[in-house]
Amino acid sequence: MSCFAVRTDLALEEGERVRDLGEKIHGVVLEEEEHRESRVRVTRVKIETKNGSRLMGKPVGTYVTLEAPSLAEQDEGYHREVSEELACQLRRMMPGGKEEQSVLVVGLGNRAVTADSLGPRVADQLFVNRHVMQQFGKAAYNREKMHQISCLVPGVMAQTGMESAEIIRGVVRETQPDFLIVVDALAARSTRRLNRTVQISDSGIYPGSGVGNHRSALNRETMGVPVLSVGVPTVVDAATIVGDAMEQMERENGLRMTAREHPRAVSELNNMYVTGKDIDEMIRRISYTVSEGLNIALDPEREVLNP
Amino acid sequence: MSCFAVRTDLALEEGERVRDLGEKIHGVVLEEEEHRESRVRVTRVKIETKNGSRLMGKPVGTYVTLEAPSLAEQDEGYHREVSEELACQLRRMMPGGKEEQSVLVVGLGNRAVTADSLGPRVADQLFVNRHVMQQFGKAAYNREKMHQISCLVPGVMAQTGMESAEIIRGVVRETQPDFLIVVDALAARSTRRLNRTVQISDSGIYPGSGVGNHRSALNRETMGVPVLSVGVPTVVDAATIVGDAMEQMERENGLRMTAREHPRAVSELNNMYVTGKDIDEMIRRISYTVSEGLNIALDPEREVLNP
Amino acid sequence: MSCFAVRTDLALEEGERVRDLGEKIHGVVLEEEEHRESRVRVTRVKIETKNGSRLMGKPVGTYVTLEAPSLAEQDEGYHREVSEELACQLRRMMPGGKEEQSVLVVGLGNRAVTADSLGPRVADQLFVNRHVMQQFGKAAYNREKMHQISCLVPGVMAQTGMESAEIIRGVVRETQPDFLIVVDALAARSTRRLNRTVQISDSGIYPGSGVGNHRSALNRETMGVPVLSVGVPTVVDAATIVGDAMEQMERENGLRMTAREHPRAVSELNNMYVTGKDIDEMIRRISYTVSEGLNIALDPEREVLNP
Amino acid sequence: MSCFAVRTDLALEEGERVRDLGEKIHGVVLEEEEHRESRVRVTRVKIETKNGSRLMGKPVGTYVTLEAPSLAEQDEGYHREVSEELACQLRRMMPGGKEEQSVLVVGLGNRAVTADSLGPRVADQLFVNRHVMQQFGKAAYNREKMHQISCLVPGVMAQTGMESAEIIRGVVRETQPDFLIVVDALAARSTRRLNRTVQISDSGIYPGSGVGNHRSALNRETMGVPVLSVGVPTVVDAATIVGDAMEQMERENGLRMTAREHPRAVSELNNMYVTGKDIDEMIRRISYTVSEGLNIALDPEREVLNP
Repeated sequence: MSCFAVRTDLALEEGERVRDLGEKIHGVVLEEEEHRESRVRVTRVKIETKNGSRLMGKPVGTYVTLEAPSLAEQDEGYHREVSEELACQLRRMMPGGKEEQSVLVVGLGNRAVTADSLGPRVADQLFVNRHVMQQFGKAAYNREKMHQISCLVPGVMAQTGMESAEIIRGVVRETQPDFLIVVDALAARSTRRLNRTVQISDSGIYPGSGVGNHRSALNRETMGVPVLSVGVPTVVDAATIVGDAMEQMERENGLRMTAREHPRAVSELNNMYVTGKDIDEMIRRISYTVSEGLNIALDPEREVLNP
Repeated sequence: MSCFAVRTDLALEEGERVRDLGEKIHGVVLEEEEHRESRVRVTRVKIETKNGSRLMGKPVGTYVTLEAPSLAEQDEGYHREVSEELACQLRRMMPGGKEEQSVLVVGLGNRAVTADSLGPRVADQLFVNRHVMQQFGKAAYNREKMHQISCLVPGVMAQTGMESAEIIRGVVRETQPDFLIVVDALAARSTRRLNRTVQISDSGIYPGSGVGNHRSALNRETMGVPVLSVGVPTVVDAATIVGDAMEQMERENGLRMTAREHPRAVSELNNMYVTGKDIDEMIRRISYTVSEGLNIALDPEREVLNP
Repeated sequence: MSCFAVRTDLALEEGERVRDLGEKIHGVVLEEEEHRESRVRVTRVKIETKNGSRLMGKPVGTYVTLEAPSLAEQDEGYHREVSEELACQLRRMMPGGKEEQSVLVVGLGNRAVTADSLGPRVADQLFVNRHVMQQFGKAAYNREKMHQISCLVPGVMAQTGMESAEIIRGVVRETQPDFLIVVDALAARSTRRLNRTVQISDSGIYPGSGVGNHRSALNRETMGVPVLSVGVPTVVDAATIVGDAMEQMERENGLRMTAREHPRAVSELNNMYVTGKDIDEMIRRISYTVSEGLNIALDPEREVLNP
Repeated sequence: MSCFAVRTDLALEEGERVRDLGEKIHGVVLEEEEHRESRVRVTRVKIETKNGSRLMGKPVGTYVTLEAPSLAEQDEGYHREVSEELACQLRRMMPGGKEEQSVLVVGLGNRAVTADSLGPRVADQLFVNRHVMQQFGKAAYNREKMHQISCLVPGVMAQTGMESAEIIRGVVRETQPDFLIVVDALAARSTRRLNRTVQISDSGIYPGSGVGNHRSALNRETMGVPVLSVGVPTVVDAATIVGDAMEQMERENGLRMTAREHPRAVSELNNMYVTGKDIDEMIRRISYTVSEGLNIALDPEREVLNP
């Protein structure tokens, strides 16, 4: 999870926060998509300039957010709707147009930490075919058109002793995919986003939160091929949630407190996170929804909603 | 986890809170044990009267708290120390003195929810012998003195359709143990207590927080035999943590706010909890420490620290 | 798994074996059901007399076998067909006719041993409602007719120190269900049966293979209510498989060997079993199919194939 | 598991089989080590020539086998002994002498298939330090001498769409370790070897059993650095076990049967394996023993038995 050091991984939340502060954001465009029959709300944040990037604390690029209020519920039909919408938005961002491509899907995160296991679990449920295509071609599937799909779960640095970026770059050089799709658990600022939001981006992923650590970045520059990312917020940083409540109280009561005056509770929240009581079940369900979205997007014979 | 509805399961925290409010607590006695060579701090809260029970929101009984600051760390020697101290305190509360007893250990909670899986995981690592003792006697172990130990993981009501108390009572009537030891994950009020505190009590367990639901209580009255409980706080209720921070700010700034004036964030924290980022590993480690504590306490040929 | 001590848990296999030996089996009736549109082959073995019971090494009762050759494949439609057929056959054996009943489903076996985890995994996926029905009645589900369903995973004796039968009997006395459905992994004689056969029976279950151990039997006599069982063979005893091959060779070559003359390999196969390389995936899939069969059978508003 | 296509992965068994057939094996040397205080039997098979390689069906190289009859038992002291012996033998085969090295440990196999999960589970318990060493040097550990250790779990081709060899080669080129240690589950010919034998080799690993598939081989030639392997047999191919019993019967009774005359049972055993009933627990325990052996071998400040 690239999340744990930053206050939010969601460009949408950062946009809302900046807007709430009454600041103008030059170089950032927010579009909400009017959405058809689907019950999924789609918002597009484009960070277009360096200034926008600085203000938002996120790299230049497009960030598409799907909000699906009842994603957390056990409604199979609804989950399918989210998978379809995810597939549709992913297709729009996939490079290479209508050609056949080879795609490496990467499941980031730690399989042994529930809140961080989204990436590995999506990978577990992905349809892969590269090994069959390499040996027998599309004939093996009796298909006219097919992408070559492979999938990697690199593990986390504390387990491997290597940056995820090192492992992925090695595999990219060896197997030469046309582009990457990286799946990861995210941190949100508000519990309202948990487990019901999916963010797709073409700006890359910056484990440890983009503090200029070039070795660990996963983007076109470091990988040599385009990098799409798909993320779902599964936790809220506990210090953030208490801090936000403090700020709101101060604002509404005209107080001005320094960080040192903040209640002791806040400093104790280091390394703590807030999450739902049903997180184990939630991760299980959402990883299926996301993997289905990828499986649909990566099957060129499947049509998606107005792509 | 009996925790999710209440603000704290720890009598120690409730005692501190009441004391901090400057209230006198008639009928409640707090003793701190000066502790020898062990690095474990032991506190004993005795709720002796109905008035004490009302003020503390907990039934009459003795609550012993072990605080082991570095229980969360990967120090095997230290874990052993905590297991030994737990065994020592358990022995002091076990009924029946020096006689051989038959003991049923119950692991409460939901195996599939990490933060709630302490009870089932302790059960997995428990030494049981009742089936062997019934058939072959102590001879099978070449021992002079031995308790008969059995162990049950009843599951949670949403999985079984039955109250844990119903299942346990049925098994108690059928197998006639002399007393019960019930292991459960708890909720604390402060993140400082998480994963480093063990509470032992003889007052029973009240899933759903003692709202007079007699059917679900696990105590001597409903079970017909004494009930000891062993609990470790693994989560803090998220609304509690923000609420506590709010209260402190109000107090320090002379504000008076109604619940409705509290920041929106608080109401959204329903069903959310705060926990450490390493909860999966933590539960794994602490369940081992607790199971070892029980294994030592229940082996009459093992000596413990001044019991 | 009640299986590990016996050569086959399947009455069908025992029937075939006895028939192959050219013996007449008085008191045993075999019927094959001609089956409609479904691709599932249904056979019914009725052991009607003590003599039949002795010859077959199984208690008097009805044993229905569903054979679904491609149950092992990843064909969702097909799995549904098996679930429907299982529901249909279960309904025919359920006591109480069209009345509302309360049913306790028991998942036998060891969750931590893959080949023995069928029962616990079926339980995990079962729809239970007893706790809701007790408190709110059918109104909670807006239904006219509904059974009360509860579910228990007792664990195995080595983990609990208690016979499964003791735990179940205690829970039956406490919660008073009208009948039991017990789910368990079985042993087959032939690998051809593995993971594609379901046996339903009304004769009870005899962990440790009916050696007259009355305490451990799960039947109407010991439980006080009718006991249906649902089993799927997941392993073949390794000594059995080699022994059978030996016997066949001897027969075909006119040899007569004593057990002592059998190759060393056979005696080393004690406590070994034969299973498919994909057992983990298989168990996952079949436990879903069986749980769906139970969920359909236990919903009185769901119609099943000519019940 | 590279095992499933071959009859045995153990050079020792192949040596015994060839010897039992009364054949002389030019180019193959068997040495048994007289062993000191340790209860572990150590045998060394050296395949020195192409002829030896052809006869043994294994590449030229050294194969060291540790046999520890009670490895399967729950005796902690004994497990430590096996770990120490494994460390000692590994040290003797590690290239680079007494210098500091960087080592990549690879856990082959499928985490989701119990019998094939040895590699991933050993990896989970390995001490890795490369990420810390890269950033802070040995100072971080206050050590004079230390190897740089990293660790990779590539997954299996059906999950990733890539040969393990492709993934590993990419990571080797990117991170430049001095040598590899590859851990894998093996197949034995006899159940007597299961879970009590460890084979160490410097000849590389040939997933899919060395049928000249150069792309998938893991050896010095394909990886560019030396490759040590550590394997534990966890299964026996079921067809092998029955076939061996048949052969023995034929031999002892002077029969000559063609494969077609073999009992039907044998042909049905395709894709089946024989394993112990306690395989889940076994894998858990042995993966710990092997990971400890690696952790000791890779810590230059730990002394090992006469290395």
